[in-house]
Amino acid sequence: MTKFVYSFSEGDRSMSELLGGKGANLAEMVSMGLPVPPGFTITTRACQVYLRTGAQPDELQGQIDRSLIELEESMGRVLGDPGDPLLVSVRSGAKFSMPGMMETVLNIGLNDLSVVGLARVSNNEHFAWDSYRRLVQMFGKTVLGISGEPFEERIDAAKESQGAAADVDLSVAAMQTLVTEFKEIIEQETGTQFPQDPKEQLAGAIHAVFDSWNTERARIYRRREHIPHDLGTAVNVQAMVFGNAGASAAGLGSGSGVAFTRDPATGERGVYGDYLSDAQGEDVVSGVRNALPLNSLDEIDPDSYVQLMGHMKNLEAHYRDLCDIEFTVERGKLWMLQTRVGKRTAAAAFRIAKSLVDEGMISLDEALLRVTGEQLAQLLFPRFDVDAESTLIGQGTNASPGAAVGEIVFSSEAAVAKAAQGTSVILVRRETTPEDLGGMVAATGILTSRGGKTSHAAVVARGMGKTAVCGAESLRIDVKKGEMTTSQGQTLRAGDVVSIDGSTGEVFLGSVPVTESPVVTLFESGVRKALEGADEETAELIAAVDRLMAHADSKRRMGVRANADTGPDAARARRMGASGIGLLRTEHMFLGERRQLIEDLILASEDSERETALQALMPLQRSDFTEILTAMDALPVTIRLIDPPLHEFLPDRVELAVKVAVDTERGTANESDIKLLNAVNRLSEQNPMLGLRGVRLGLVLPGLFAMQVQALTEAACDLLKKGGNPKPEVMIPLVGSIAELSVITTEVQRVIDRVLQERGITLKIPVGTMIELPRAALIAGDLAELAEFFSFGTNDLTQTVWGFSRDDVEAAFFSRYLDLGIFPVSPFESIDVEGVGQMVKRGVKKGRAARPGLSCGVCGEHGGDPASIHFFDSIGLDYVSCSPFRVPVARLEAGRASVAPANSHLNM
Amino acid sequence: MTKFVYSFSEGDRSMSELLGGKGANLAEMVSMGLPVPPGFTITTRACQVYLRTGAQPDELQGQIDRSLIELEESMGRVLGDPGDPLLVSVRSGAKFSMPGMMETVLNIGLNDLSVVGLARVSNNEHFAWDSYRRLVQMFGKTVLGISGEPFEERIDAAKESQGAAADVDLSVAAMQTLVTEFKEIIEQETGTQFPQDPKEQLAGAIHAVFDSWNTERARIYRRREHIPHDLGTAVNVQAMVFGNAGASAAGLGSGSGVAFTRDPATGERGVYGDYLSDAQGEDVVSGVRNALPLNSLDEIDPDSYVQLMGHMKNLEAHYRDLCDIEFTVERGKLWMLQTRVGKRTAAAAFRIAKSLVDEGMISLDEALLRVTGEQLAQLLFPRFDVDAESTLIGQGTNASPGAAVGEIVFSSEAAVAKAAQGTSVILVRRETTPEDLGGMVAATGILTSRGGKTSHAAVVARGMGKTAVCGAESLRIDVKKGEMTTSQGQTLRAGDVVSIDGSTGEVFLGSVPVTESPVVTLFESGVRKALEGADEETAELIAAVDRLMAHADSKRRMGVRANADTGPDAARARRMGASGIGLLRTEHMFLGERRQLIEDLILASEDSERETALQALMPLQRSDFTEILTAMDALPVTIRLIDPPLHEFLPDRVELAVKVAVDTERGTANESDIKLLNAVNRLSEQNPMLGLRGVRLGLVLPGLFAMQVQALTEAACDLLKKGGNPKPEVMIPLVGSIAELSVITTEVQRVIDRVLQERGITLKIPVGTMIELPRAALIAGDLAELAEFFSFGTNDLTQTVWGFSRDDVEAAFFSRYLDLGIFPVSPFESIDVEGVGQMVKRGVKKGRAARPGLSCGVCGEHGGDPASIHFFDSIGLDYVSCSPFRVPVARLEAGRASVAPANSHLNM
Repeated sequence: MTKFVYSFSEGDRSMSELLGGKGANLAEMVSMGLPVPPGFTITTRACQVYLRTGAQPDELQGQIDRSLIELEESMGRVLGDPGDPLLVSVRSGAKFSMPGMMETVLNIGLNDLSVVGLARVSNNEHFAWDSYRRLVQMFGKTVLGISGEPFEERIDAAKESQGAAADVDLSVAAMQTLVTEFKEIIEQETGTQFPQDPKEQLAGAIHAVFDSWNTERARIYRRREHIPHDLGTAVNVQAMVFGNAGASAAGLGSGSGVAFTRDPATGERGVYGDYLSDAQGEDVVSGVRNALPLNSLDEIDPDSYVQLMGHMKNLEAHYRDLCDIEFTVERGKLWMLQTRVGKRTAAAAFRIAKSLVDEGMISLDEALLRVTGEQLAQLLFPRFDVDAESTLIGQGTNASPGAAVGEIVFSSEAAVAKAAQGTSVILVRRETTPEDLGGMVAATGILTSRGGKTSHAAVVARGMGKTAVCGAESLRIDVKKGEMTTSQGQTLRAGDVVSIDGSTGEVFLGSVPVTESPVVTLFESGVRKALEGADEETAELIAAVDRLMAHADSKRRMGVRANADTGPDAARARRMGASGIGLLRTEHMFLGERRQLIEDLILASEDSERETALQALMPLQRSDFTEILTAMDALPVTIRLIDPPLHEFLPDRVELAVKVAVDTERGTANESDIKLLNAVNRLSEQNPMLGLRGVRLGLVLPGLFAMQVQALTEAACDLLKKGGNPKPEVMIPLVGSIAELSVITTEVQRVIDRVLQERGITLKIPVGTMIELPRAALIAGDLAELAEFFSFGTNDLTQTVWGFSRDDVEAAFFSRYLDLGIFPVSPFESIDVEGVGQMVKRGVKKGRAARPGLSCGVCGEHGGDPASIHFFDSIGLDYVSCSPFRVPVARLEAGRASVAPANSHLNM
Repeated sequence: MTKFVYSFSEGDRSMSELLGGKGANLAEMVSMGLPVPPGFTITTRACQVYLRTGAQPDELQGQIDRSLIELEESMGRVLGDPGDPLLVSVRSGAKFSMPGMMETVLNIGLNDLSVVGLARVSNNEHFAWDSYRRLVQMFGKTVLGISGEPFEERIDAAKESQGAAADVDLSVAAMQTLVTEFKEIIEQETGTQFPQDPKEQLAGAIHAVFDSWNTERARIYRRREHIPHDLGTAVNVQAMVFGNAGASAAGLGSGSGVAFTRDPATGERGVYGDYLSDAQGEDVVSGVRNALPLNSLDEIDPDSYVQLMGHMKNLEAHYRDLCDIEFTVERGKLWMLQTRVGKRTAAAAFRIAKSLVDEGMISLDEALLRVTGEQLAQLLFPRFDVDAESTLIGQGTNASPGAAVGEIVFSSEAAVAKAAQGTSVILVRRETTPEDLGGMVAATGILTSRGGKTSHAAVVARGMGKTAVCGAESLRIDVKKGEMTTSQGQTLRAGDVVSIDGSTGEVFLGSVPVTESPVVTLFESGVRKALEGADEETAELIAAVDRLMAHADSKRRMGVRANADTGPDAARARRMGASGIGLLRTEHMFLGERRQLIEDLILASEDSERETALQALMPLQRSDFTEILTAMDALPVTIRLIDPPLHEFLPDRVELAVKVAVDTERGTANESDIKLLNAVNRLSEQNPMLGLRGVRLGLVLPGLFAMQVQALTEAACDLLKKGGNPKPEVMIPLVGSIAELSVITTEVQRVIDRVLQERGITLKIPVGTMIELPRAALIAGDLAELAEFFSFGTNDLTQTVWGFSRDDVEAAFFSRYLDLGIFPVSPFESIDVEGVGQMVKRGVKKGRAARPGLSCGVCGEHGGDPASIHFFDSIGLDYVSCSPFRVPVARLEAGRASVAPANSHLNM
């Protein structure tokens, strides 16, 4: 027989999968001897059966009945007993916290008779009838699915007729009338009576909690948080205790509070929390009444305060982390209602982790697991100066982090035009569509009044690394009128300046000063510089980050390189802790003033013209390479030969065709435009991503790759002669067959050998390949016979494995896919382990089988994504490469991956 | 010790890999007791060592020496003996025939002394000195690598000074002078003497044959013929016999001939061949002198003739196939010099195969293996009427089969313009480039004067299924002048009509009448109709094709379906033997007049407009489905829901933008163009292939798929009520994740169930998925939980596995890739077994593991390609689907795959 019900005295916190987080932690507190109102937990497995079959498992009812009897015995009261009723609460509790998403029913056990008994034994008629009123209302809404409105209407009417400000001010008689009216509502709406049988109440509440797992809002929440839909929720049935049982006699008062064992905002040591007399927990959390600081309990009820302090100390020592608790004092008796490891800000996470190490409570390894790369990333963004004055005018979802200041524009065209003049703009739209893409690229930040973290604006902004606040609903945006109106009635127009905080979702009026993160200063300039003039809080943060980064570096197995294309980028990457360059995109050297040279190359119709164009590019490439190899002296630099299709360097086809047509109409068309248009037409491709690029270009356009390799080898020789230690590596892009690689590596090697021989220099320049096509991964064993290293290009691999181009689909349908739950997260943000990841894994395995010890890295943007880094660690990659700014994040996550338990990436 | 040398008496014809085709067949003839001049074969393995290391294996020389002694003993003469020299030939012989590609050296053993002996014993001084002259010349060219020119110059000078018409007319003295001069040329060019030592001659000749394996022309030939480069060639050293030893006395005459055991052109029974008195084999083949019909030997030398007829009968019985032989008569003694299974035309292949079955020589299974799908395909093309008068004006490579007649045009623009007026045109270019694509699409046929089967024109034409003749070098094409001049000096201009035969490479002046193939009539209308008025040759062909097709159908495991989108296509496919439709592309129903309706759908800005557009399309779709389901009554019809990106239905973006810009300039722009341009811009994608299409469209555009499924289900219901037996299947395109499939199949099933319920009809409509993305193949096990069938879309799978788009790369670099040997054949023509094929194999395996018996088919164009069909059979696919015209080819090849030995597809 399956055990579907566990008493709180039977479980422990390791059982959260079965008992839910709340139930497991209650059981843990019981096992620690803390005062927890007794109760039992119905398992998630029971919920799963219920959801799958539509009925609770056969054995469940008997187990509930037996556990209820035990509960009644331990409390010395019987559920719904007319004389002295036991009341219970029924609360959800899933494995992962889903705050506010699921249902709760309190005060079960009250009926027309037991309410009288409760009034008598509590000596508080108001409390008893208020509790009954709450039960009927909650049962109607939650269990019977009646809208909340008719209930609220009656309460409002009662308050009005009594001149009462709050519910609590209503008279007992009014409460009794409300109970009667509520029961009538239930009968009207459902045709059934409010159940007087407490067991019927209990069964209904349990099923309501089960059902609430599958509400629309719960499903949406789970999709966003990547929580599987099949987990189900546990249900906790617990004896009620009452913080609202009156604040009367000294030492016999009641109240509720929430508390943290240290400050979750800053990580500072010392308890922290709120307390409210004569109140239930909900009252504290909702903020309806102003709560007192936690230490006020010391004066109100010193005994309970001392006990509480002791319990909190025990909890932190036991959980070895910041704990977040809820408690209630009922007539002078302290009850612990909930505990869990508390959420915290990014800065607090670092400070707490270091602090716990200093206190000897956890090891450095454990400390590493208490912080995340995403938290570190948050600390790297510039922030609005907290000390500066600012006027908050709106609050939305923190859709894409950063701090952006700019003039409001209401259209993509205006954004492009203003940005072209050098003005920072914030693109303000009700919501964005693919037509807004140009404006999003041009804008400094994006602000919308509709949509959340999976809206088009949010998805695209994150993809671009652009600051965005979405769904700021209090702002009324009228794009046609060109107006944005705040809830205070203030109207902003195009040209007005706003500041948006993508990390908090806040929108401010005017320009708020932005400050550089002290953590960036730490990485850029070292700990001493970062500590200069820092306040204590900042100093502690810097010390914590420094300590944990050092530990991550000492523990990580994987190297971290950077993707960088210029000397300054390379230098910055090195300061950020990169141990080399994993991807140098040589095509980025063809932009700006050199565009003309590459145009000459493309337009060359004869070999001699092409040769001239290549010769003109050579010295420029050589000096680029010199600069970067110097910045990365003694560290490996992986140079990718030119990859994109050539027409990317030419003007836009539509624009040019229109220009030539209009000029022709005006009789002002010029020969060079026409020649250029012919070339653009000739090189135009239906699907450039799948066209003439990468190794194909090298095979079709003679001399291009050779020029690049010659420039590189010469640069390396020059440096070596000057006493440097250049470590270049040549990487061939977009290889799909062994023959392609063979032809090109032969040519590359020939050029290297020739230059080295001419210069009389000995230098090993490894030649490797990117693995960025499915076919390359499939034949990785063959490729490894020739390639001296592999670098997985997971951007392109994602595009080909899924068959979608990032340019097109992120804007067109990713937000819809995220909403439908088809992706938990964009596969361009975090690697698709099931598809793309399997290709990478296979490639590594086959490559190393053919060439033991083959160096394998990743140079797609996944190299900076925490979950992806853990996956790459699990399949044995040697290094990840990411943008210079993400290098610290990758170092931290690589360290975390090394100390994390096996397979932990699967839960990332 | 490795055995590198085999006497002819040691091998047999199964050993062609080791001994080469020639050596193995010589050994076979020896084992049959036929009179073969003795000799030995040096193995391909020796050649492989030589090519790899640059030197012959250590053991080889000893083995050659011993074999030479045996040869000398069996002939009773010694190599180069001054009195009565043994002479030997040294010939290449690879596993696969490479006619004319490699080297031969004859008359080895002659030197300044032995030539005198030979003159004496042959009693023919002229013969002896001519042989010596040939040796020195051949040795200089072949072994020493001297250009042929200086030798030819001396011969021409000698002929001129003697007034001799042919080499053979030169006097003995002239021959002797030539030998002296030739030896001087050798000394001048190489600084060494012509070797007098016969063993040195032999060794040099053997190495020259080895080296000739890697000449440029040999490598190019192998690439074209898909022969691996690492096989190497064997070398046959054989005692010389002389057909040019004089035609003197009756019964002691000499001569050479070639013969076939039946007619290789038609397959007709009865020997067939040529004979030339006093000649060597080369003289017969080269056609320098007019040969006599084979049966003239009966008069010249009846004994030899009777012997020859006996040997040929034995050979055909032994090989059980048409044999092609070379023989020599030396002074009345018949020698068999070579045999092999003879090449034949497509028609002959079918007739011979059936004939051999009728004669009881081979089984029907074997007969199936004697014909190929490509041969059948050749028989299906329309041909120029052989009886019609025609003027041949050029001959090129048969680059892409078919018969095309049209007016000459010299530019892509002219082709497009003429074709738009309804004129058939032949695009004539020196060679084609990607800029000619538009013209190639518009033209009926393509003719170039440069390039072979892998040229741009040939590759692209084959991809389009368009008739092409390439590299017709005798035609001088001057595109600028707009002239094409024949070798007879006739000049053709634009507008002149030519006829080109892509199956033979012939170019005719004027319009040659085209006739439908009788084999097509056989398939279209049955055997009786096809035989009406057929001549005997045609009748025999029809009977042969009919018999072999029937056997293929009875043997094949795989079904053959057709890709068809209209009622007439479906009906034709059924006549061609299709057992259903494997791919019905519903988007093809949106073309023509209905384009406006789909435009309305795309431009709809509100749900109601979209709904209206969908409702307008519904009845049209329903009647399409009715027509096709009727044509395929009782057979499965797989309907693919709309797949391409919507902008494919809209006007070209560049053209429209130019039109709007120019109209605006003129003040004539209209609102609807502007609106359309906005829509085109909005829907425009960087990489449409990787964009919003397939299942993504179904998920993003509400109601589209539902409309199609409703139309389909209603059509099926209507037919069922009328007594029909419709068998529709719904196929979801471009699925990459289980969630996509789940959402869509749920919607599809809902629509099907609703319609069936409304109509009160019970009908099973399976819902399946295409596997056309790498990710789909990777997660095929999961997909099979939901999908009721799989259809592999190998076109798209090839594009994503390789990361290239067919539209772009075939034109841009495939010809270069074929030339470089990177592809043996375009992966769009024949499936890439190593890459794409592995994905298909894996998909089938995983799919069937999850859903035993899962139906798996292929609907890419590979479904009609012979090699691909064999591969698909080997991995257990249930059916292939191809264009209606390829259905017979696929049936034949599916039958061949069933009777072929395992793994034979690897050698296809």
